[in-house]
Amino acid sequence: MRAKIISIGDEILIGQIINSNASYISEKLYKIGIPVERVITIGDNQKDLINELKDSIKYFDVTIITGGLGPTHDDITKPVLVKYFKDKLVLNKKVLEQVCRIFKSRNTKMPEANIHQAMVPSKAKVIWNNYGTAPGILYKNEKKIITALPGVPFEMKEMIDKEVIPYIRKNFLKLTRLKLRSKTILTIGITESELFEKLGDISKLTGGEKLAFLPSASGVRLRIDVKGKTKYELSQKIKKIENNIKKKAGGYIYGEEDDRLEEIVGRILIKRGLTLSTAESCTGGLLSSRITDVSGSSKYFLGGICAYSNSFKIQHLGVDKRTIIKFGAVSEETAKEMALGIRKVFNSDIGISTTGIAGPTGGTKSKPVGLVWIGYSDEKNNYAKRFFFGNIRERTKIRASMMALEILRHNLTLQI
Amino acid sequence: MRAKIISIGDEILIGQIINSNASYISEKLYKIGIPVERVITIGDNQKDLINELKDSIKYFDVTIITGGLGPTHDDITKPVLVKYFKDKLVLNKKVLEQVCRIFKSRNTKMPEANIHQAMVPSKAKVIWNNYGTAPGILYKNEKKIITALPGVPFEMKEMIDKEVIPYIRKNFLKLTRLKLRSKTILTIGITESELFEKLGDISKLTGGEKLAFLPSASGVRLRIDVKGKTKYELSQKIKKIENNIKKKAGGYIYGEEDDRLEEIVGRILIKRGLTLSTAESCTGGLLSSRITDVSGSSKYFLGGICAYSNSFKIQHLGVDKRTIIKFGAVSEETAKEMALGIRKVFNSDIGISTTGIAGPTGGTKSKPVGLVWIGYSDEKNNYAKRFFFGNIRERTKIRASMMALEILRHNLTLQI
Repeated sequence: MRAKIISIGDEILIGQIINSNASYISEKLYKIGIPVERVITIGDNQKDLINELKDSIKYFDVTIITGGLGPTHDDITKPVLVKYFKDKLVLNKKVLEQVCRIFKSRNTKMPEANIHQAMVPSKAKVIWNNYGTAPGILYKNEKKIITALPGVPFEMKEMIDKEVIPYIRKNFLKLTRLKLRSKTILTIGITESELFEKLGDISKLTGGEKLAFLPSASGVRLRIDVKGKTKYELSQKIKKIENNIKKKAGGYIYGEEDDRLEEIVGRILIKRGLTLSTAESCTGGLLSSRITDVSGSSKYFLGGICAYSNSFKIQHLGVDKRTIIKFGAVSEETAKEMALGIRKVFNSDIGISTTGIAGPTGGTKSKPVGLVWIGYSDEKNNYAKRFFFGNIRERTKIRASMMALEILRHNLTLQI
Repeated sequence: MRAKIISIGDEILIGQIINSNASYISEKLYKIGIPVERVITIGDNQKDLINELKDSIKYFDVTIITGGLGPTHDDITKPVLVKYFKDKLVLNKKVLEQVCRIFKSRNTKMPEANIHQAMVPSKAKVIWNNYGTAPGILYKNEKKIITALPGVPFEMKEMIDKEVIPYIRKNFLKLTRLKLRSKTILTIGITESELFEKLGDISKLTGGEKLAFLPSASGVRLRIDVKGKTKYELSQKIKKIENNIKKKAGGYIYGEEDDRLEEIVGRILIKRGLTLSTAESCTGGLLSSRITDVSGSSKYFLGGICAYSNSFKIQHLGVDKRTIIKFGAVSEETAKEMALGIRKVFNSDIGISTTGIAGPTGGTKSKPVGLVWIGYSDEKNNYAKRFFFGNIRERTKIRASMMALEILRHNLTLQI
């Protein structure tokens, strides 16, 4: 089976929004063995969409359209589908109730335009939208499926997961032979080319299967792609390649697939009954924001202080004034004292600190932009490590907050 | 002139990374009057790329390829271009020096694979990469241009801005008549359909030009698109539509184009010589992280406290214990006291606070998930406002931090 994604919206072509939907859908389809072979972005233009529908019917088994289902005048998807399939719109009462409910929960009155959201094509299956007012639409025959979903990512995602993927599995997967599988391994603290060198001969490592390197500010991900005829063959191949990677670069691996470092750290903290606090300078709150992205983080995260000024570091974090005078705010000593200090302020088991020069200005020859010290303190240890994270402010913040989490994970894992 | 973007990488088709490059490039081309009419994503597959190159040469004036230029085995772009244009690779010493310099600045030794990065096609122009080891490649004849850039976003962006766009302007724009212009207006605190209703008859408002609604967790953006024959005509049309929008929804507008609320607020704070501090509960540090994303924010941002526990709010933020007992941690009264308290802790002119139920658990009937109070305090005022931000944790954090910045902007603007 082959899949295609059609993303609709001038706002994508004009570069105003990023097409995150396509990658989400691609991943979900790939996981059930249906590779997306083409992603096309077109504008809010009826003729282009009709041409793409013709191409889809001819060459692809699964077509997923996103965007153009909203309540405003520039939303073309529903009228085009109705026209293409010689269908008509009918009022769906359940959808109307849902639309009213959403406006009620927002404490606002429903604008007229939204009643139109409850008009759905008579021959299509309706895909329920829990978070928004635009339902999805699904047309199918025995072999092919064309579905349209809203472009708002968090609405679309739930509809893909709860309705579209299960529907395809149930109705179409008998037509395909499972023959693809991928696994992603997450690394941190090593660059793409260092990792490439460490792994050595890739074809030897993978036995001819694919291995892709995916670098980002959060670390390099390695994706293994294997082909095979049985589930057993696929999982054996993955296992073997994974072991080979672990042998060569195990120390840099922190997780797999969609694992988030803040979640991994959170799980260990809960398991060990430990608490955490943060003292941030150069990361400006990003570290505590990452930690609190995890639902339930209030169980172990007691809080954090973002201290930009030296006087605040001295007054509220217990950093010794002489330390700052002697070594500077961006130094091993200050990072150590910040981590220790925050642990005492919050009375937590562990304290983590960041202090650095996020840039783009403020660097000197001995302390260049991108220099960051990360401090760690628990009952037994208190130390700091030095990093260079480059000269882009937001990237430095991201890399420093990831590395702080990794230092935390490293210590939590060591001491189990 | 027509443009096309070819994004290369299994990692995009498989959904592992988001194609943010395409939207960045589209925006930049649109701004110089060259609309991107097609964005195609294909895998790391030589044959597919050759087919796309044939299509580009036939139908498009500008083709921009991203991805597949890295140092590893799955990077196909350079070999395919060399083959397609019957070219060969030669060593470029300046590029080699740059590659060595980058590894030196990272304090790491250069892996072997990276020497290959300095091999460039003999007939192509080299596009300089300031941030990474893969140079870009640009082939052109009198009418058409095909260029390949690395897929790493921050490298690609600089190369587009500093080299590719200026090159196209200089060499090709005589071939096109400037006839497109767009302007984006940024709103906050109003939903897409409320805004749609408030603006009334769109075709009357725009005189037949285009107006697109772009909702996100950070607010709804309105994009005006006009066509015309002269620069003057374009700017007059934009001005008229903009004024019409301001008349109907001016209170919700905070900026335009790429303005970021944290930057706007920062500029006013500097201008007025005021300082700021934050007390965060439900936003967990995201508010201070946004504020410190702005270079130079240390001039006005004194720091913040992320206080998850009640006892810490009482001990360190000066919230009255009786307030929390009587009204709860998520209440108007607590939000007010947190804002006042943080202002005193940091001795800042303004204090901002957030307290709410980010979810997905922890809600009650009277205090549902998504309820957030945002507190404000300055010398004269101390108040809090209530919001409902839905039941998705990360969205609630984003919306609450944006709204806190908007409350700040509102107050700063009022009092000038």
